[in-house]
This record gives sequence, structure tokens and C-alpha cells, in this order.
Amino acid sequence: MKTLFANGYVLIKENDGFTVTDHAYLGVENDRICFLSTQAPTEPFDSVIDMRGKLLMPGLYNCHTHSAMVLFRGIGSDLPLDRWLYEKIFPLEQKLNYEAVLAGSYLAIMEMLACGTVSFSDMYFFPEATAEAVLHAGIKANLTRHIQSEKNIFDRQGIQASLDFYERYDHAGNGRIFVDFSLHSEYACAEQTAREYSRLCYEKGGRMHIHLAETTREYEDCIRRNGKSPVAWFYDCGTFASKTAAAHCVALDENDIRILKENQVSVVHNPSSNLKLGSGFAKIPEMIDQGVTVALGTDGAASNNNLNMFEEMHLAAIIHNGRQQNSMVMNADTVLNMATGIGARLQGRQDCGELKVGNKADIIAIDLSAPHLCPRNDLKSLLVYSAQASDVCMVMVDGKLLYRNGEFLTIDRERVLYNIEKTRIR
Amino acid sequence: MKTLFANGYVLIKENDGFTVTDHAYLGVENDRICFLSTQAPTEPFDSVIDMRGKLLMPGLYNCHTHSAMVLFRGIGSDLPLDRWLYEKIFPLEQKLNYEAVLAGSYLAIMEMLACGTVSFSDMYFFPEATAEAVLHAGIKANLTRHIQSEKNIFDRQGIQASLDFYERYDHAGNGRIFVDFSLHSEYACAEQTAREYSRLCYEKGGRMHIHLAETTREYEDCIRRNGKSPVAWFYDCGTFASKTAAAHCVALDENDIRILKENQVSVVHNPSSNLKLGSGFAKIPEMIDQGVTVALGTDGAASNNNLNMFEEMHLAAIIHNGRQQNSMVMNADTVLNMATGIGARLQGRQDCGELKVGNKADIIAIDLSAPHLCPRNDLKSLLVYSAQASDVCMVMVDGKLLYRNGEFLTIDRERVLYNIEKTRIR
Repeated sequence: MKTLFANGYVLIKENDGFTVTDHAYLGVENDRICFLSTQAPTEPFDSVIDMRGKLLMPGLYNCHTHSAMVLFRGIGSDLPLDRWLYEKIFPLEQKLNYEAVLAGSYLAIMEMLACGTVSFSDMYFFPEATAEAVLHAGIKANLTRHIQSEKNIFDRQGIQASLDFYERYDHAGNGRIFVDFSLHSEYACAEQTAREYSRLCYEKGGRMHIHLAETTREYEDCIRRNGKSPVAWFYDCGTFASKTAAAHCVALDENDIRILKENQVSVVHNPSSNLKLGSGFAKIPEMIDQGVTVALGTDGAASNNNLNMFEEMHLAAIIHNGRQQNSMVMNADTVLNMATGIGARLQGRQDCGELKVGNKADIIAIDLSAPHLCPRNDLKSLLVYSAQASDVCMVMVDGKLLYRNGEFLTIDRERVLYNIEKTRIR
Repeated sequence: MKTLFANGYVLIKENDGFTVTDHAYLGVENDRICFLSTQAPTEPFDSVIDMRGKLLMPGLYNCHTHSAMVLFRGIGSDLPLDRWLYEKIFPLEQKLNYEAVLAGSYLAIMEMLACGTVSFSDMYFFPEATAEAVLHAGIKANLTRHIQSEKNIFDRQGIQASLDFYERYDHAGNGRIFVDFSLHSEYACAEQTAREYSRLCYEKGGRMHIHLAETTREYEDCIRRNGKSPVAWFYDCGTFASKTAAAHCVALDENDIRILKENQVSVVHNPSSNLKLGSGFAKIPEMIDQGVTVALGTDGAASNNNLNMFEEMHLAAIIHNGRQQNSMVMNADTVLNMATGIGARLQGRQDCGELKVGNKADIIAIDLSAPHLCPRNDLKSLLVYSAQASDVCMVMVDGKLLYRNGEFLTIDRERVLYNIEKTRIR
């Protein structure tokens, strides 16, 4: 099966930035991009889709979320952080079950597809349920059976369960699912657990996904508890020997940033969540300047409260300018790269995240007809500063159309909404 | 003509906050709300519109914009502030004409309607063109022929032109257009101009619309030039004797905030623009705590880069939590109030901005069917933290439907887009 997208704009990576090519032809054969040119192909295609007035770009890679937390969207939104967690979220999570997480995962995948996300890095309970939804829906995901326990208990069972999940699901769905190793955070695992599990991750050649230094309080508690920062603690546990995605990284000292850089730990920036919860500002441009790799994520919808990577791109592009009182701190190229190529590589997907021949066909289309995308003075700028996620009109993953003009092509929307109500936890 | 909206959710003001009523009936007769109850009316209505799965709320009041600047959307987006202004925007503005501003005003109105805005406070060139578009489109606007001149020239002509515009357009379109007085800023008018014009505004009982303390540099230049802050300068010119809307207010000292409070000057918060341009953070929650009234605006699309009040509500709700590292600083009620009732009153529209019997029927409907608005745990929270402007599915102004399900009912969309291209300034 060969499909040609004809006459659209295409966002193409070029060195450190992007260019937009007009009247371009992009061909897809099976799961890969097979053609890309401003000249029409001479070879035949099975179907041709007209893309006039639309822009093709790489799909977005959401590198930190807790997808099924959409179930708790908006609950306790305006409570203080501690009361929100201890009075609302934790008691609800105690009641979670497979069916509820399955329903929540489907809902989250619908939302992510509709907002242009083609792959997400998840960390949540009942990951088998999320895997079921991912396999059926056709999206990509880096899943994990994460380690989260009392601080002073060696979580032998958790480690075994995590390894079992890894053996069972890694590379499932023709490689759409990757399984990551995951320690929830310094404050939710014992040192012995972290050391043993990090050693196993390294042995297996795995990727690690952690929460790191989300708040000043976490940083200070860690210093009190361990005599060192969360970054130093994970480093000493051997965690960073593996390729690591560290969500948040708001509360760092200079030595922490040096450790992240030297160990090639990637930071996942979650601006909506960090702002809404009052965690503060991760020093993203400063870290980028020092050579730290930064990807982008939404965090869960309980703290965001959505899974909209266009919103995260927009926030990442403007909040640091405001904080540093300098309009040049971030720019469109930087955040487009964070949300696409950097995210794909962080997930271990080397042949994704960029529109070029030979890469996987993970492609989204932006409908440029809305008034807020007119006139087309600068298309990259429109994507980052003007677009809404609702401008996404098509999502393709591994060459398969999953979403088009508001319709989910692999998910029964009404059934998902029914199951959300049926499995509702109160 | 009597229309009944039946079975929807309705966002109702209650003391300092809002409540959401389900299965409500809201009736409109001519230009006003004539019925609001959870009981169906016994009297007949000419038409009944089913609102199941939708939420009715007051339309949004954009209290600071330069609507026709949509023409320059995205131009020089990633340049430093000075180069953006002096190399890009100012030279383009030299070439503006009536036709271009007319086309730009129509485009801006389309964008604002599609994003749920029912009224906007404008400050830009060729306001007669914007008035023409407003009168035709059916939206509301506070327009002005603002004063903007060399610092040391008494702008007698400008004052006269501004008064002429006031006499000609104030209360046009059955009161949809209000005309405000407007001094661009301290740095763009002479003290004599400001004094004379402020005196005339006070005599006429007018409202004043100004830029105030947008950047630290503006604040410092003003101190150097006048030996006092921009706030103190306007106060001394007598400007604050009239009801004043002051856009930005990023660079204020404690004395400035006291002056704003004592003179009941309203601040218009423009978070997107302040962040993107690197101006910084207006101390909004601190000002609210001290009793200053704060409304919300988008600023122009050249610096935002859109006219999306849902985005501004979201930013206003989260960025101050981040800055103060406290999740309780802002909340959904506060920003919903800023974007509706406070904005309407600032524009002098006492019978607008709140859904209640007797008020003008300025109503928008939110389609709650998108995945990112599910489940409906907390509707107010959904509106502020989860919604996209694209969830707006209906806009009514003075009882007249202007936008419904993506269609503009009073504006010829294709003609506007054609005119944008035809009048394009390069």
C-alpha cells in the first residue's frame, strides 16, 4: 500500500532548525516514508491525498505522562498540593482496577491523538491495561511497570513484576510498544531497590524513566534524608548508567546540572504541571545552554489538566522568556525539536521524529484554515505561538491513519465514553 | 423573537465565584436574557435549541488588543524586542491604510468570535475601519482614536481627531460600540497632551485606555525622563480622574500599586504577550490581594500571536502559581471573573458579563464532547485548565447568533481571506 500526500506544506528538519517546504509530495509505503520532494513522483501510488492548505509535520512525542489519570481530571484542581494528593488522588488511586485504567488509557489515547501525539512515555498502575489500549489503538508508547514503594522497604516483588512486564511487552505491536525501566522517585523507593533495579536496567540495556527534583521540598527532604540531592542520590545508585529520562528537574543546583550533563540524562520539561501545582520553573534554557538534552511532556491530566502537547510547546516557548526578561531565550525551532526528534530519540525510536525518507511514517497534518493561522507570514511561528491542538486534522502512526477530521479510526469513541462512566471511581 | 436554550449546563455567578447548574433553561428575548431556571418555562418560545452536553457561559471580554495587528501575525517572532519593533512592525505600520485595517479587523473578529470573545477593547490605527467591521459583524467593541506622537510635541490635531471619533461613534450600533479615550503610553505622548486630553476625558465622563509600565526599561526610562514612574506620571497628568484601563503593569513599585488602588485604575493582564516578549510577570495576585481590579486581554496578535482568551485564562491561572511556588495563588473562579464580569464592567457595560435575567444576551456555548473535557468531574476547572478555544460552538451577542459550529453567520469568510491577501502589506 502506497499513499501520496500531495501539494501540502512539509516541516523538514535542517541542521538545528526546521524549514517549511511548500507544494511538497510525501509518499508513504507500508509503515515508512518512501518519498519526499517538491517534484511529483514518477512512480505510481495507490492513493493520493490532497494536502493543499495543510501542513505535514512529525507527530509529537509526549515524554512524560500518566495517561489513565485522565480519570481524575479536574478533581481538587484548586486545592493545595498536599491536600490534593492526600485527600483526593491517593485515596482514588487505591480503588483503581484494570477496567478503569483500560478505559482511562483509551480516553487518554483519544485525547493525545486528537492533539497530534503519536507516542507517549507512561508511568502508571496496571500498565497491562494501557498496553492493551495502545496495541488496539495503533499509537506508540514507552510503557513501564514502575517501582513505587515505602521508602524503607526493599521492593523485591516490584522489581520482579517490572522485569516480567519488560520481558512480556518490550517491542510488542511491531515495536510500537517499548518497555522502560522506572523508579517513581527518590522519595518512593529504597536505596537498595534503586541500586539493584538500576543494575538490572543497565545489564538489560534498558532505558530508565524517573521523577526527579519536581519541587524544592523534594530537594530539601532528600538532602535531609540522604545528605545529597535527588540527582546525586540517583547517580550514586547507578541509575544514570542507563539512558535516563528525568521528568521535571525544577529544583536543581549547579552540581546537579553538571551530573545530568556528564551522564547524558535527558530532562523532560512539563511546564503546565509545574506551573499549575506551584512547583516553579525548570531552568530549561540554562540547561540547554550547558548541553543537557531536554524533551517535553504533559505530565498526567490530574495535574495539567490535559494532554495537549501544543500547549506544552507554547508554554515552553514563552515562559522562560518571561522569567529571564529576554525575548530571545527560547524560539520555535528549539521547542519543535524538543517535541519531535529529541522526544523520539529519548524513547529509543531512532527512525522516528523527523520527516525523511526511510523513517517511520509518524505524521500529523495541521489544517491551516482557521482564522488564528492567517495570514501565513511564518509557518513555524504559527505552529508554536498561534496554533491550537484542534488544528490537527490527521494523525498517522507507522503508516496507518488513526485520526482524521475529528474521527478516531481505530477507537470506538462511544464505547470508551460509556466505559469511563461504567468504571468511574469516586 | 424568543429563543430557549434547553437542558444545558449554565455557568452562573454567585457571590465571588461561579456555580454550574445542570439541565437548565435559559431564554432570550430580543437582545436580553428573559428566563433562567432549572424548571422549564410555561410561557411559549419561538424556537428551542437543545443544549445537552453543552455549557452556556458569559462571552469573554478581551480588554486590551490591537485587532488589525493580526496582519503582522508571526512576523519577526523570534527577533529581539527592539529589532522586532524597529525593523519589522514600525516600517509595516507606516504602510497601513483603511482597506488593510478593515480586512485585518474582520479577520481578528472572526478569530475572536471563534474563541468565544463577545467584546474587545481596541487601540489601533484607522479605527473607523475597525468600527465598520464591528458594526457589520455584530460583535461589541470599545474603540478609540488613540493619541500616539513624538514625546515633545503637543498633539492638538490628535486630540481633535480623537474627540471627533468619540462624537461620531460612541454608542453606535445600539451601544455595541463604545468609544474610549486613549493615550498610547507615557513614552508616546507629551505631558501637555496628556494633561489636556485627560482633562477633556474627565469633562466628557469618558473611559481611558492606556499602556502602562509594560517593561522595566519603560519604567526606568520614565524615571530618568520625568523623575517619576509611569504610574505617577499619568496620575500627575490627571489621567486617573477618569475610569482607566491600564494594560500590562509589569514594572510597578509599591507606591505605583497604591496609586492604582486609590484611583480605582483597572489593570489589564496580558500574560501571553508579556511572556513571549520577555517583559516579565505582572504581579497580578499581589495586586488583587491589595484590592486592584484586574481584567484580561490578549494584546495584539503580532506579539501574542493569537487572540485566544481561553489561552489567557489558562496562563493567568497557572503562571503566578509557578512564580510564587504556591498552587493556591490563582484559581478558576478568579480568572473566569476576570474574563467575564470584570471585563464587561471595565468596558462600561454594566448589563453584560454575567448570565442573569435582564442582562444583555452575550452568551457562548462550550461543546463538552471532546476527549480533553471528559470526565466532567469539575466543569469550572475544565473551562480554565482543560478547554481549548475550539470547544466554543456558539457565540451570541445582544441576542443575535454570530457563530455556530464553525460557521460565521454575519461574516463572509472567503471574502475576508481574499481581502487579507489583496491588501497585504510587505
